Amino acid sequence: MATPDQMDRVVNLCKRRGLVFPSSEIYGGFRSTWDYGPLGVELKRNVKDAWWRSMVQLRDDIVGLDAAILMAPKVWEASGHLATFTDPLVDCRSCKERFRADHLPGSGACPNCGAKDSFTEARHFNLMFKTFVGPVEDDAAVAYLRPETAQGIFVNFANIQTTSRKKPPFGVAQIGKSFRNEITPGNFIFRTREFEQMEMEYFVPPGDADHWYEHWCQERLRWHLDLGIPESKLRLRPHDPEELSHYSTATSDVEYEFPWGWGELEGIANRTDFDLKQHAESSGQELTYFDQENDRRYVPYVIEPALGADRATLAFLLAAYEEEDVANGKGGTEKRTVLHLDPRLAPIKAAVLPLSRNERLTPIAEEIAGALRPHFMIDVDSSGSIGRRYRRQDEVGTPYCVTVDFDTLDDHAVTVRDRDSMTQERIPVDGLVTYLREQLPW
Amino acid sequence: MATPDQMDRVVNLCKRRGLVFPSSEIYGGFRSTWDYGPLGVELKRNVKDAWWRSMVQLRDDIVGLDAAILMAPKVWEASGHLATFTDPLVDCRSCKERFRADHLPGSGACPNCGAKDSFTEARHFNLMFKTFVGPVEDDAAVAYLRPETAQGIFVNFANIQTTSRKKPPFGVAQIGKSFRNEITPGNFIFRTREFEQMEMEYFVPPGDADHWYEHWCQERLRWHLDLGIPESKLRLRPHDPEELSHYSTATSDVEYEFPWGWGELEGIANRTDFDLKQHAESSGQELTYFDQENDRRYVPYVIEPALGADRATLAFLLAAYEEEDVANGKGGTEKRTVLHLDPRLAPIKAAVLPLSRNERLTPIAEEIAGALRPHFMIDVDSSGSIGRRYRRQDEVGTPYCVTVDFDTLDDHAVTVRDRDSMTQERIPVDGLVTYLREQLPW
Repeated sequence: MATPDQMDRVVNLCKRRGLVFPSSEIYGGFRSTWDYGPLGVELKRNVKDAWWRSMVQLRDDIVGLDAAILMAPKVWEASGHLATFTDPLVDCRSCKERFRADHLPGSGACPNCGAKDSFTEARHFNLMFKTFVGPVEDDAAVAYLRPETAQGIFVNFANIQTTSRKKPPFGVAQIGKSFRNEITPGNFIFRTREFEQMEMEYFVPPGDADHWYEHWCQERLRWHLDLGIPESKLRLRPHDPEELSHYSTATSDVEYEFPWGWGELEGIANRTDFDLKQHAESSGQELTYFDQENDRRYVPYVIEPALGADRATLAFLLAAYEEEDVANGKGGTEKRTVLHLDPRLAPIKAAVLPLSRNERLTPIAEEIAGALRPHFMIDVDSSGSIGRRYRRQDEVGTPYCVTVDFDTLDDHAVTVRDRDSMTQERIPVDGLVTYLREQLPW
Repeated sequence: MATPDQMDRVVNLCKRRGLVFPSSEIYGGFRSTWDYGPLGVELKRNVKDAWWRSMVQLRDDIVGLDAAILMAPKVWEASGHLATFTDPLVDCRSCKERFRADHLPGSGACPNCGAKDSFTEARHFNLMFKTFVGPVEDDAAVAYLRPETAQGIFVNFANIQTTSRKKPPFGVAQIGKSFRNEITPGNFIFRTREFEQMEMEYFVPPGDADHWYEHWCQERLRWHLDLGIPESKLRLRPHDPEELSHYSTATSDVEYEFPWGWGELEGIANRTDFDLKQHAESSGQELTYFDQENDRRYVPYVIEPALGADRATLAFLLAAYEEEDVANGKGGTEKRTVLHLDPRLAPIKAAVLPLSRNERLTPIAEEIAGALRPHFMIDVDSSGSIGRRYRRQDEVGTPYCVTVDFDTLDDHAVTVRDRDSMTQERIPVDGLVTYLREQLPW
């Protein structure tokens, strides 16, 4: 069972083992931003690669894009973000603290100082970060950090369709940073002002939109399950009509049961032809598709699965985390912390562990490590007891430990230990790459 | 020979084939920002992956990091960026245009309107983009978009050293976006305000700094050569003493001969202990290493190879670009445009080409494509003559074309054509993945 306590343990593990650090920590941190450490960057890279692989590499109907974070301000005018991407904010007249009007308690008393009926009228506060491009800070040079990657896809629709020669249904996938000036970031890497998105816009004939919306809801659920999120922790929640964005006729969230409750990992939305029509109107460019077979021109509808890379990473970590009682070899039990990460997501695929620091074992361990490195992200660890080193690898999710012992000098074989079952197998050094390749899907 | 004309041809190819588009193009573009299209995003991913692989995966002494773009402003105070990361700017009193004082012609006449001696005094203009974090635009909430990724590594030095248990010499590698409010961006993706860096900070005992500086100069040259930059186009240029940054005792640039002249791809700098000392002093935290073997505590020196991902991508494109006269099969010659990209960098590794759109060839082509997809980024193209399709793949650098013809139905083999030699070989379908794996290094 996920408990708030489990959240603390995972955050602690992330700090202690170099998965995620508070950003600018030596200066006391900075407004809920986080840095991915040596193991965290590998985990997040693997999450992003798994998404890219499933979206772009394994499919013939989806291509990639990497658009700039800074775009023409007219993009945000056309998309509606300048006018409506706002939170209603109120100030407490007594203590001057600022709150989201839609998150205030029913009592009408300030959550900070307790003053009653002390709030100002709600004002709309735009969530986009503003900056100035060029050497003059005037209105002409205003730019915004994109609050979503999707618009980079819509404004490139014609360029992409023409150069890739794809026909609807086809999609464009993109991974990149977005920025939202959230009033209340929190829950570790779940809600942050700077975050990474994995968004795909799937362009379809208008009449097929409902079909593809259903398809992508199921397809995206499958992706999370395939990479190790248990079914009991995952649900698809359709939005109520009043929850829907102005551009959407149907949206469902893929939610994960976080320690603090159900939270959105991914939204799948039928965005209709809203975005392409808005940009066509604002830019004066034609953003349509001419269907030669049926001799008709139309504005495609868009189905968008939009996943948060940081949230997905957090969900994989939480789902993988376990504290187990295991035999300690002395007739008793001891606790082991283990991340049962899918091997495709594990930061390190195999650890090479020479049984002891010894002039005969070290060279052969180095040789084995050298043979594995071109194929897998590996670690070499020679300090501490072998049991302690197993535990160190277990708690960061390394699927295989390769132990080099004195028998290796004679039989040219190593002991390969499985993270989850803790069973060990003797494997010839010559066959080690092949053995691990068979265990590790890619 | 690289000529300005060649630059136009490459930019044109990039637009026409979906490698790089002007950002926000339907709105007339936006201040020298660029978007990577379907093929460009794959090329750039491969460049970044090649760097990460050489830095992090293949070495035991370097770990990765992914720090946030938004950091505590104190970071930029300590690093010196707030005070000194500036360009001197002057205005022309006559036409009001703004220029970099150090880039003005010797004649003293405005390059825009021709007015003589019309410039204002030079003022220092900070190159960092400023924004505001949180709901109030006051000084307390000011933040900057990082102008380099390096500082994210320095402020995490203690966290990384402790959690990764590495000892100097060891390094931390990072890939990520940086932002500089350049007055004069230009030359396509060479100088842009938003750009991606691949930086590695290598922490060494102070006495070993000169040795490691030399090591990394040679090592980085080797990396560019290994991935296909010809030796004649590459040079290492040591900075003159007056060119050196305030924090560096020695810097060399890896330069590529672009069509407009030699330009910096990468800088290798001995940053001394400047950054760690500055952050230790500003934060009050200890940023040192205790060398147990020699019983001494020291502040490591830092050797930094810092490469621009966009510049590297541009150099690989330019070096790979060729227009060749080839036999047209009718006794004459025709022109083919080809990107001789290293196969590791090629956006698409293999194209599957059914000889014609035919109900017997299509299913087998689909089957072959399906078998290749888990292993390689592939393309399937069935439109136009086979010669035209070869040319299409040549000009985006696809190393192998796999042609499915009517013989395939009988002999279960395909014709594999090599991009560079244009030779063809008959390969059994069953052995195709193995064959391509042998040709494609990873």
